[in-house]
Amino acid sequence: MNQFQTMLDGTVTSAKGFTAAAVAAGLKKENQLDLALVVSENDCSCAAMFTKNQVVAAPVVVDRETLAANNSRLRAVVINSKNANACTGEPGLANARATQQIAAQALGCEASQILVLSTGVIGVQLPMAKLEAGIVAGAAGLSRENGRLAAEAIMTTDTRPKHVAVRVELPGGPVIIGGMAKGAGMIHPNMATMLAALTTDAAVAPDLLDGLLKTAVNQSFNRISIDGDTSTNDTVLLLANGMSGTAVSDPESIAQFGAALNQLCTVLAHMIVRDGEGATKFVEIQVTGASSEADAHQIANTIATSPLVKTAFAGSDANWGRLLMAAGRAGVPFDQTKINLWIGVHQPDELQLVANGTPTDYQEADAAAVFAQPEFMIRLDLGVGGEGTAVVWTTDLSHDYVSINADYRT
Amino acid sequence: MNQFQTMLDGTVTSAKGFTAAAVAAGLKKENQLDLALVVSENDCSCAAMFTKNQVVAAPVVVDRETLAANNSRLRAVVINSKNANACTGEPGLANARATQQIAAQALGCEASQILVLSTGVIGVQLPMAKLEAGIVAGAAGLSRENGRLAAEAIMTTDTRPKHVAVRVELPGGPVIIGGMAKGAGMIHPNMATMLAALTTDAAVAPDLLDGLLKTAVNQSFNRISIDGDTSTNDTVLLLANGMSGTAVSDPESIAQFGAALNQLCTVLAHMIVRDGEGATKFVEIQVTGASSEADAHQIANTIATSPLVKTAFAGSDANWGRLLMAAGRAGVPFDQTKINLWIGVHQPDELQLVANGTPTDYQEADAAAVFAQPEFMIRLDLGVGGEGTAVVWTTDLSHDYVSINADYRT
Repeated sequence: MNQFQTMLDGTVTSAKGFTAAAVAAGLKKENQLDLALVVSENDCSCAAMFTKNQVVAAPVVVDRETLAANNSRLRAVVINSKNANACTGEPGLANARATQQIAAQALGCEASQILVLSTGVIGVQLPMAKLEAGIVAGAAGLSRENGRLAAEAIMTTDTRPKHVAVRVELPGGPVIIGGMAKGAGMIHPNMATMLAALTTDAAVAPDLLDGLLKTAVNQSFNRISIDGDTSTNDTVLLLANGMSGTAVSDPESIAQFGAALNQLCTVLAHMIVRDGEGATKFVEIQVTGASSEADAHQIANTIATSPLVKTAFAGSDANWGRLLMAAGRAGVPFDQTKINLWIGVHQPDELQLVANGTPTDYQEADAAAVFAQPEFMIRLDLGVGGEGTAVVWTTDLSHDYVSINADYRT
Repeated sequence: MNQFQTMLDGTVTSAKGFTAAAVAAGLKKENQLDLALVVSENDCSCAAMFTKNQVVAAPVVVDRETLAANNSRLRAVVINSKNANACTGEPGLANARATQQIAAQALGCEASQILVLSTGVIGVQLPMAKLEAGIVAGAAGLSRENGRLAAEAIMTTDTRPKHVAVRVELPGGPVIIGGMAKGAGMIHPNMATMLAALTTDAAVAPDLLDGLLKTAVNQSFNRISIDGDTSTNDTVLLLANGMSGTAVSDPESIAQFGAALNQLCTVLAHMIVRDGEGATKFVEIQVTGASSEADAHQIANTIATSPLVKTAFAGSDANWGRLLMAAGRAGVPFDQTKINLWIGVHQPDELQLVANGTPTDYQEADAAAVFAQPEFMIRLDLGVGGEGTAVVWTTDLSHDYVSINADYRT
C-alpha cells in the first residue's frame, strides 16, 4: 500500500461503466447462484493469463482464440460455476462458442467480444438450455449493485465470496480497479482452479495491460499454494474500459497503476488461501539466502506443498524437521550445516529453531505457541550467501480438505 | 516370478549365517521393540542406496563414509526406530559414530564393519545410554529366530512388520535372499523414510552387488509413492556373506540372482504401499504411449502424488477429470485430444472412460464399482505414439493420513 492507493470494500462493478448479473441457472442444486455476467458499457482492452496445464478446458481454448483476434474491443464475461467444461472434447468447444453467441445476442454485441469462463466438475457437458435461459435472464437484470452476488455466483467449494477494489490517484485523475476471484482447491502457482475477473475504468492499451497483469499475477496468484494441483480452467482476466477518462501511459501513472494492481491481486490471492479447502491456518513461508529467486521459490513451494508439512500445520505441531526434509527434496543444492530456521507470529524471525543445521535450545512450548496461531510465518535461510528470496502463502492440510475432496462430485 | 524363484515367508535371517536381535531399548514408550541388530557370522560384501534429499541424517553420512572405506568386510547393521538422528548437527554425527563403536565392541569386530540406520522423529538427539544398553543386550541375544521381531523393531507408523525371502536356484546351487523394510509416510521415488535391510548367502563381489541393487531399487522402491515426501534417512542395503558356497559371477547366475532380487524388492515395496499411512487403497497407475520412459514416469508420479486424485481414491469417487488434470500439470507436453483412459480391477483396461480426450458413454455405476475396490488399476495412454511406459504404485489420501501426521511427535 502506498499514499496513492485506497482499498475499498468494492467489487467487479466498482469501476465506472461496469455492471453485473448473478443468476441461479439451475446448474447447482437448490436455486443457488451459478452464473455471473460482467458487462462493460463500452469496448475494453483486455489482458488475460491462463493455466499452464497441458489439459485445458474448452473456455480456455475459446478465450485464447478470441483474444488473439481481438484484445481491444471486449464487452462482457460470462462465468458459470458447477461445471468446468473441461475434458469435454468437440461438444465442449461447441458449447463454449454457443455460449458466446447466446451472450452476444442477449447483450447486443458480437460473439468475438465475449469471454467465457467455467469452473466445477470436469468431464460433463454443459446443460446448454439452462445456461441459455440464465444468460438471457442475466442480461435483463444487469446492475452496478450486483458485484457481490456475481462473486457469490462463481463460487464452488469457496465458503465466502471474494471481491475487493482499489482506488488509485493517478496524475491524470482517479481510477478504480475492482475484482472478484474464486478458489479453493487446485490452488498452486500457475494458478489452479482459480478464476479472477478484474475490471478498471482506466484507459490502458492492451499490450501494456498485458505486461502489468503478468507482473501482478506473478507476485500474487502465482505465490499461493493450497494443494499443489493446478487446474484445467485457471484464468485471470482484466478488462479496461477507459471510462474514468484517465489514461495509463506515462511512466508515473504506469508505476502507480501497476502497484495498485499488484496490491489488488495480492489481497484477492490471500483471500483465496484463507478460504482454501479445509484451511484452518494461513502460513507465510519465506526463503532467503538462496543463490537465486528461482531456487528460493522452488524451495518455498516444495515446503508449501509437502503433505507432511501441511498435516503438521493442521495439528499445530512445530515439527520443523519436516520443513527441512521438504526443503531438501526441492532439487536445489545447499549445505545442511549452513541452514537457519525461524518462526514467528508477527515477524518471521521471532524464535530461532535451527542454527547452522543444528537445533537451538528453544523451548518446545514457545514453538508450539506459534504453530497454534491461525496465522504465522516461517523463515528458512539457506546460508548459500546469495540474494535469492521468495515468499509463498499456504494453508494446512486438514480433515476437512479430505472430506471436501473425497466426494466432491455428489 | 520365474521357475528359478520360490518366495518364502522368510526374513532377514533366512539366508545362511545371519542372525538378528530385537530389543525394547526404551526409545519408544511402553516397552515396545525399537532396536534391531542384523549380524553376519563372517564378512560381507555390501551395496547400499541412500536418500537423494539434500538434508541427510547422521547415519546416512556415517554409512556413506564407512562404505567408501570398506564395502567387502561388513559384519552388522544396527537399526533404531523412534528417532531419526536427522538435523542433529555435530552431536548427531558423533552419536552415530559412537553407535558403531558400541556395536563393534559388543560384537567383537571393528567399528568400520558396522552400519547404522535410524528412523523416526527429526531434530532430537539419540538417548545414547539407552541405545548402548540395548545394543549390549541385543548382542547377547542374537538368533536366527529373531528375523520377524527385527522387522517389528524397525517400525514407526507401520501397522505390521514387512519381511520376505526368496530362494533362487542358481547353476552353482541354491541361494537365499531375505529382507525387511519399513514405511510408511514420506514414501516417494528416491525412497522416502524407507529403510530396507536385505541379506543373502550368495557370494557377490561388491561392485556387481551395487549394480544389481540399483536395478532392483529402480524397479521397486523407486516406483512407489504414498505422499510425495522423501526423507532424510532412506536407505536400502544388501549384505552378501557367501555362506551358501554359491557365487554369483557368471552371466546366467547374475541374471537369475538379479531377477530374484528385483522380485524381493517389489514384494517389499508393495507391502510398504499397502501399509501406507492411512491407506485404504492400493492403486497401480500405468502410463503408456509416451515419448520416453522418463515422460511416462513423470506423469505417473504426478498423478500418484496429486492430493485431489488421492482424496478421490479415498472417497471411491471415479473423478477421472482429476487424473487428467494431474497428468496435464506434470510438465510433459501432449495433445489432450489424443489421450485415452481406462480403469479396471483385474486388468488395467476393463472400462474405457475417455477416448481421444472425450468421455465415453460409460455408466457411472461401472466406474464407481472399480473405484470401490481396495485394489484397482488405471491406464492412461498419452497417444504421443511413443514406446514410453511406466508403472507406479500408490495409495489414497485418507482422514487417517491426516490424523497420523497432524500430531506425529506425541
